[in-house]
Amino acid sequence: ESMNGVVEEDPPYVFVVFGASGDLAKKKIYPTLWWLFRDSLLPNNVNFVGYARSALSMEQLKASFEKNCKVRDSEKDTWDRFLRKCAYVQGKYDDSEGFKCLQKLIDGMQSAANNIAVNRLYYLALPPSIFGDVTTQLKENCMDNGDSWTRIIIEKPFGHDLQSSRTLSNHLAKLFKEDQLYRIDHYLGKEMVQNLMVLRFGNRIFNPSWNRDNIGSVLITFKEDFGTEGRAGYFDQSGIIRDVMQNHLMQILTLVAMEKPASLNAEDIRDEKVKVLKAIEEIKLDDVVVGQYIGDMESKDESRRFGYKDDKEVPSDSKTPTYAMAVLHIKNERWEGVPFILRCGKALNEKKAEVRVQYKSVNGDIYPSGDLKRTELVMRVQPNEAVYLKMMTKKPGMGFGVEETELDLSYSSRYKDTRLPDAYERLFLEVFMGSQINFVRTDELDHAWRIFTPLLEKLEKVSPTKYKFGSRGPPEADDLMRKNGFVFTGTYKWNPPKL
Amino acid sequence: ESMNGVVEEDPPYVFVVFGASGDLAKKKIYPTLWWLFRDSLLPNNVNFVGYARSALSMEQLKASFEKNCKVRDSEKDTWDRFLRKCAYVQGKYDDSEGFKCLQKLIDGMQSAANNIAVNRLYYLALPPSIFGDVTTQLKENCMDNGDSWTRIIIEKPFGHDLQSSRTLSNHLAKLFKEDQLYRIDHYLGKEMVQNLMVLRFGNRIFNPSWNRDNIGSVLITFKEDFGTEGRAGYFDQSGIIRDVMQNHLMQILTLVAMEKPASLNAEDIRDEKVKVLKAIEEIKLDDVVVGQYIGDMESKDESRRFGYKDDKEVPSDSKTPTYAMAVLHIKNERWEGVPFILRCGKALNEKKAEVRVQYKSVNGDIYPSGDLKRTELVMRVQPNEAVYLKMMTKKPGMGFGVEETELDLSYSSRYKDTRLPDAYERLFLEVFMGSQINFVRTDELDHAWRIFTPLLEKLEKVSPTKYKFGSRGPPEADDLMRKNGFVFTGTYKWNPPKL
Amino acid sequence: ESMNGVVEEDPPYVFVVFGASGDLAKKKIYPTLWWLFRDSLLPNNVNFVGYARSALSMEQLKASFEKNCKVRDSEKDTWDRFLRKCAYVQGKYDDSEGFKCLQKLIDGMQSAANNIAVNRLYYLALPPSIFGDVTTQLKENCMDNGDSWTRIIIEKPFGHDLQSSRTLSNHLAKLFKEDQLYRIDHYLGKEMVQNLMVLRFGNRIFNPSWNRDNIGSVLITFKEDFGTEGRAGYFDQSGIIRDVMQNHLMQILTLVAMEKPASLNAEDIRDEKVKVLKAIEEIKLDDVVVGQYIGDMESKDESRRFGYKDDKEVPSDSKTPTYAMAVLHIKNERWEGVPFILRCGKALNEKKAEVRVQYKSVNGDIYPSGDLKRTELVMRVQPNEAVYLKMMTKKPGMGFGVEETELDLSYSSRYKDTRLPDAYERLFLEVFMGSQINFVRTDELDHAWRIFTPLLEKLEKVSPTKYKFGSRGPPEADDLMRKNGFVFTGTYKWNPPKL
Amino acid sequence: ESMNGVVEEDPPYVFVVFGASGDLAKKKIYPTLWWLFRDSLLPNNVNFVGYARSALSMEQLKASFEKNCKVRDSEKDTWDRFLRKCAYVQGKYDDSEGFKCLQKLIDGMQSAANNIAVNRLYYLALPPSIFGDVTTQLKENCMDNGDSWTRIIIEKPFGHDLQSSRTLSNHLAKLFKEDQLYRIDHYLGKEMVQNLMVLRFGNRIFNPSWNRDNIGSVLITFKEDFGTEGRAGYFDQSGIIRDVMQNHLMQILTLVAMEKPASLNAEDIRDEKVKVLKAIEEIKLDDVVVGQYIGDMESKDESRRFGYKDDKEVPSDSKTPTYAMAVLHIKNERWEGVPFILRCGKALNEKKAEVRVQYKSVNGDIYPSGDLKRTELVMRVQPNEAVYLKMMTKKPGMGFGVEETELDLSYSSRYKDTRLPDAYERLFLEVFMGSQINFVRTDELDHAWRIFTPLLEKLEKVSPTKYKFGSRGPPEADDLMRKNGFVFTGTYKWNPPKL
Repeated sequence: ESMNGVVEEDPPYVFVVFGASGDLAKKKIYPTLWWLFRDSLLPNNVNFVGYARSALSMEQLKASFEKNCKVRDSEKDTWDRFLRKCAYVQGKYDDSEGFKCLQKLIDGMQSAANNIAVNRLYYLALPPSIFGDVTTQLKENCMDNGDSWTRIIIEKPFGHDLQSSRTLSNHLAKLFKEDQLYRIDHYLGKEMVQNLMVLRFGNRIFNPSWNRDNIGSVLITFKEDFGTEGRAGYFDQSGIIRDVMQNHLMQILTLVAMEKPASLNAEDIRDEKVKVLKAIEEIKLDDVVVGQYIGDMESKDESRRFGYKDDKEVPSDSKTPTYAMAVLHIKNERWEGVPFILRCGKALNEKKAEVRVQYKSVNGDIYPSGDLKRTELVMRVQPNEAVYLKMMTKKPGMGFGVEETELDLSYSSRYKDTRLPDAYERLFLEVFMGSQINFVRTDELDHAWRIFTPLLEKLEKVSPTKYKFGSRGPPEADDLMRKNGFVFTGTYKWNPPKL
Repeated sequence: ESMNGVVEEDPPYVFVVFGASGDLAKKKIYPTLWWLFRDSLLPNNVNFVGYARSALSMEQLKASFEKNCKVRDSEKDTWDRFLRKCAYVQGKYDDSEGFKCLQKLIDGMQSAANNIAVNRLYYLALPPSIFGDVTTQLKENCMDNGDSWTRIIIEKPFGHDLQSSRTLSNHLAKLFKEDQLYRIDHYLGKEMVQNLMVLRFGNRIFNPSWNRDNIGSVLITFKEDFGTEGRAGYFDQSGIIRDVMQNHLMQILTLVAMEKPASLNAEDIRDEKVKVLKAIEEIKLDDVVVGQYIGDMESKDESRRFGYKDDKEVPSDSKTPTYAMAVLHIKNERWEGVPFILRCGKALNEKKAEVRVQYKSVNGDIYPSGDLKRTELVMRVQPNEAVYLKMMTKKPGMGFGVEETELDLSYSSRYKDTRLPDAYERLFLEVFMGSQINFVRTDELDHAWRIFTPLLEKLEKVSPTKYKFGSRGPPEADDLMRKNGFVFTGTYKWNPPKL
Repeated sequence: ESMNGVVEEDPPYVFVVFGASGDLAKKKIYPTLWWLFRDSLLPNNVNFVGYARSALSMEQLKASFEKNCKVRDSEKDTWDRFLRKCAYVQGKYDDSEGFKCLQKLIDGMQSAANNIAVNRLYYLALPPSIFGDVTTQLKENCMDNGDSWTRIIIEKPFGHDLQSSRTLSNHLAKLFKEDQLYRIDHYLGKEMVQNLMVLRFGNRIFNPSWNRDNIGSVLITFKEDFGTEGRAGYFDQSGIIRDVMQNHLMQILTLVAMEKPASLNAEDIRDEKVKVLKAIEEIKLDDVVVGQYIGDMESKDESRRFGYKDDKEVPSDSKTPTYAMAVLHIKNERWEGVPFILRCGKALNEKKAEVRVQYKSVNGDIYPSGDLKRTELVMRVQPNEAVYLKMMTKKPGMGFGVEETELDLSYSSRYKDTRLPDAYERLFLEVFMGSQINFVRTDELDHAWRIFTPLLEKLEKVSPTKYKFGSRGPPEADDLMRKNGFVFTGTYKWNPPKL
Repeated sequence: ESMNGVVEEDPPYVFVVFGASGDLAKKKIYPTLWWLFRDSLLPNNVNFVGYARSALSMEQLKASFEKNCKVRDSEKDTWDRFLRKCAYVQGKYDDSEGFKCLQKLIDGMQSAANNIAVNRLYYLALPPSIFGDVTTQLKENCMDNGDSWTRIIIEKPFGHDLQSSRTLSNHLAKLFKEDQLYRIDHYLGKEMVQNLMVLRFGNRIFNPSWNRDNIGSVLITFKEDFGTEGRAGYFDQSGIIRDVMQNHLMQILTLVAMEKPASLNAEDIRDEKVKVLKAIEEIKLDDVVVGQYIGDMESKDESRRFGYKDDKEVPSDSKTPTYAMAVLHIKNERWEGVPFILRCGKALNEKKAEVRVQYKSVNGDIYPSGDLKRTELVMRVQPNEAVYLKMMTKKPGMGFGVEETELDLSYSSRYKDTRLPDAYERLFLEVFMGSQINFVRTDELDHAWRIFTPLLEKLEKVSPTKYKFGSRGPPEADDLMRKNGFVFTGTYKWNPPKL
């Protein structure tokens, strides 16, 4: 606000997409920017700049992402306004010319804004190989002058193992300060993942039992019911552990397991995430099951008859897992002895992501042996966001026995008129706001690699178990869960309420 | 079961209703017996005998209760079979003749049953004044011979104060053994009340927080939205405390507060109920608010313009409370310092009975001050049986704040095809089965009177606060709750799901 | 107290010792009575009557116990006064004559006391075989008239197994009310055993950790460093389990494990003791090690070269254990999963009785692996009464490491001027006072036998392991402890402070 | 160690004392260095250099500290060896010449050590005014070349308030890295303070009760029984809060209150200390009592008749407190609602420093009201190091009541042959070892000032209450403790065992 009736200008912002011609840009980044713009969630004075090596007109760039933006007829005017805010810069990634050109463009924005300095968001939608060059060029040519800020948004992969991750982190640390770095793990933008801290720290009922004395195990699941579908070449370089477990599932694990932070400040929260990671030892091969899917020849669905290695991009001797279960042990006061079971896979029987906190059996049970089933608190991340508490009730009616039921909060029924925004929308907005809570700090990343790298190296010599497309995955995984005290009775299935 | 292929006869049962011509018999007892019979829940060989002073034919007796039985056309045959099992004995209550006659009738049943001894259920639907006579006569004339059993079912009032209750209990103790006595508190037959133990002892999640460290207060509510309506004369003798609080609400309190019993055995459970009662001191006047409703002259509903004292059966100087709130203190390890607030009243703003366990505020709250509301676990007894956990969630959608929501289990939606039987049906069946869990033991009763009698005596000199028909009751009651740490924010209202 | 200055007489008491000529009477009962009398702890107007079959003069009786009374010269006058209060009645146990004579004697006492009725304490120091007769005779001839009280003090054995114990209990239940029965387990009279409840329920620090979450195991030990020495004949009929474990050690176990009672009232306390017993299942053979000592031929001490079977009173094929360890499981909320290890034996390496509560290891231990030893709370019953908490401290001095130390309360040093009375003294006094807290109630006894009887039957076919006189007992016992999670590091030994 | 039998040289160390001619140097630093040297605790190849402005010969310097070193006759040779390792450099603090000279001296040591680089410890025993100059000079002239290390040891005061402390910290941050800075709070070198973490995190018994549910308050006391004695001029500039409370007592508070760190690593520990400080709000004036001592005219001891303002160095209108009590509130999960009472003062009734953790009263107390006193865990820092647990026991002997006793660990009795080193000895050694655990990190210091500065400013206008030399301090302090729930019964006094 201003004094003396003088109207002060809004500060200008520029959002630059490096790799503007790529897949991520057209499928995710531009549509996300459009939705935020459409819903008036972005600052007034924002401009969007695409940057890539290709010779593209703005018209061509627009054509590449327009379909994914799903513009409705009623939004035509807004869409035109959006496009007027978009520009494109062609430039190399390893040469200063393009970056100087970009800087000039930003200077122009500043002039247009009564000379108020421009806040800069640089989104690096780029393969690792050119990552170093771009960041070096940015540092040299495109930084703010201290009267505005610059934020660098980075997409995974953040390295391939501890060594390469550290090399990258060190490189970044020389160029930028930690508070300028926004490493995206888009799972941190999901409604239910963002809800985890509120559930734990906002509700007095959970804390007294959120510990080794009462919780038997924690199961964090990510299942897809489709295969690698066209991404097999890329996927074979990384495998399911790098693709899903070491980042997304580990992020969820830290949110489930961490101590209450000193405040909601991003540094305090990330301090606690790192603290819990410190307490996790490297994963042992004995605590892991890996699998690779084969076609289900009996399926009528053609895509399901197609196994992982049937993809011609996959080497015939590939040992890359498409399924993995790993049991992690947190050696601290709260969790020692409680297995955290991470499970993820492709081409499985269903599509879901959820956290399942399974309580121990009741001590000194006075009900007939076996009647009481274990309490479970389930937070379903996708699809059908929900929180439910599986528990025992008296069998309703004349009976005297007990049966399983649930206390339920299904978003689709309770919040049916609320739009749950996409993870990217949230995260982009948080970068604009300068909130680093849901971005991965360097030491977090480092610990995640520390924990997984020795396992990944060992797995290079391990042939994954075959499992059929559409199955539950390797049966050894169920054995491993059982061995870790997870009790699956099969007597209960949550049915989300229908509208 | 039998050996050698010989068919053994089912043992015969007789259910005798003393006070067969009274209100309770025709409105509750006969209909309940009919429903149990109709649904084949009773033993095969059961007979029903009415006993009263009036000269009645069976036809007349039948006429008195038939309407309340709501017999459907399709049930005509079963209804006839039921009636054939009914008999009536006319007799005095203070003279052995009628009882000898009854005994003879039972002898006849024995003969008819291949001389297998008849199990006897004597239901005493009688005013206190003739209670002594009947039980004495029963003891002298109508007991089993040791080869079958006799059970005495008693309805409240179980005395008017500690003194009269002890007199009655001592009288019964001389005649019968504790395991022959079934004192009915029909609240113990309600679905949600019977569920309390399962919720507490069947679910690992609740126990760790079910204590003074985590629970701020427990509110047990019974509200009616109508007045004394024709019962005013009787009611004025007892008042809402004797009518509802000292029995129904105290029973709920003991179930909420008691320690886990050694087993589900009736004696073990009642031992624990008594143990918690022992830890409750006499209620102090300072911990009580009483009220008496007056007509709401602005109401369009005529009945609501009619105050308690407008009833001509009520003395004009009546100090009988129609509303009461009392705060009880349980001085034991688990509950010291946690107020148990009992609240009941007539002519209030709504009709409901529920238990509301309010947790303390979160310690070391990191959310903006005031944003987090308290967790509440609510067990709704009637209407609309439900269990729900009011809690905080992230405000769904783009927001970053928190809001109240609930984990819900509404019976009408989750169990929509299950018939929840009436409290009396359950309890009658339990008497047949010999399960005393849900009946009031002598020492339980004694303690309830010990706790309330000094208060009742003091209240004889206290004029209750006036409150308007249809209101929340006396405002002093809200003050008393606040003083006891109950936090009402008014920001949340549970909406049971609609079908 | 009296009104109007009129001096009211003290009520008279009589303490009758049945079996006055026996070992127990002369070694324990008369000396105990003397010490209490000498220290003015008994009521003024008390008389002592010996009863036995032998024809004895009072002088002869006196001679039998005088030495054990250890009368000092300065006490000569008091001793004479004591003797003047002693009388002897000769009588049979199965004939009413003697009992009538006794009753007449008591009548005389009443006359002498201004006709105030005499309170009666009947101590039955008798073998089981004549137990029934005496109690029947007492009931018929020697009871109070309702204007004073009668208390029956009984010494073990209370039966030989569940069957015989129930027979005896039923016999007593027909003759006496529970509140007239005082079953002596002299362990309940020991200072440290009586202290157990105060330690647990009087100190806020212990309760939060007194449970399965924090305690790893509880070890209750009774060791003697001498053999059966002259009692072998009697001992061989019972064995160490009946002699020590099923009574003394079980009493300690219930005091360690029971929930907090509703009050210090004897019934409330014994209710809780029974509650915890209900949660204990019959002991399985797998949870037991039994041993029988043999002579240590290398010992210079002749008595130690003498094995159990070397006693000519012991049958050569005796399977009677002189050592036993049993692991008990309490299936309730507090203790499920925590082994209670009872251990007792004769001819071992040391003489001691103690309770050792061993905590679990620290979770999330940050000290070098193995450095932290487990916390132990030790209550030493005998000899050298003490409570100490073995714990870790920083190694004092320049070092940075940790080492074991203890927080200590040694009675001999802290309370060096306080005489700790003998168990019998306390218990006799409690009978006079009518305090039943430290006496065994019928249902307690019944449960103890329920738990042990199946084991005792199985053991009749099991040959105990041999162990050497002066050793730690059978090595299998150490294995059983280890298997149950008890950690013995051998790095620490408590040294009681020297004066 | 070395390979191939070649003897590798020990690396050389130099310990430089800036302010070598000052009080601290002669009273504390040189004696400490001597004791460490004498006991062979320092590295072999160490040299000691004094630096000051004065023109001093080494002989003169030696003369200044020799007496304080208390060299015994038997140590004469070692003392000579020590002196041979001492040198003196005369130089200004704001001019590079002296520092270059020092650097040259160190270069010489390197040459003498086969050119192994010298590790440098710079001890700044200097007033704040010249602090900036010296550190700047050091940075410019005397740092290592990366092949050895440099550590800067700083003595309080670390600023006078938040502002001046930050100025100083920022100055240091520009010159040195955090891991080069060793801020001394000598309380962190005391045996019992160093023991706090072991007691808390090494003993399973304490953790379950170490929280708001069980602990009523924590009292941290520092009392001296003498006045300012010659230091009054200096003291009046700071006052007891800056002198003792804001540093020493706050350090103890963080060790008592902090969560368990991820490891024993210095950064992990200091992270937790900072986390707990973050949860402490600025102290309010209402939570504070300040006092100033006056002479006790009735005392026979002349020094006690001398009040604070009787010192001519103290301005007659001085408001400087010589006594302070402050109640701190830690708003986190563990401690919300538990007052931490800091208390310190001069000229009081006794000399002691201790931590007293007072538990809440027992809930559901079954003992006669008032009989049970509160459990207290006391850690006595000085004099007479001890840990004891005040608790209730059965009154030993024939009684049935309860009384207070203690579980005790008195160092003088348990460890009578162990020398407890002086705080400075430990801390110097830790600097040599590079262990920063017991040194104050910049953010710790910053928070301590944040918490106290607003209070200190307010106190400039508050006149402290007068209290008599030798008294307990201002009576208002006892009121404040009571108001905060601390219960003082006066029924118990710990008597350390006598040898």
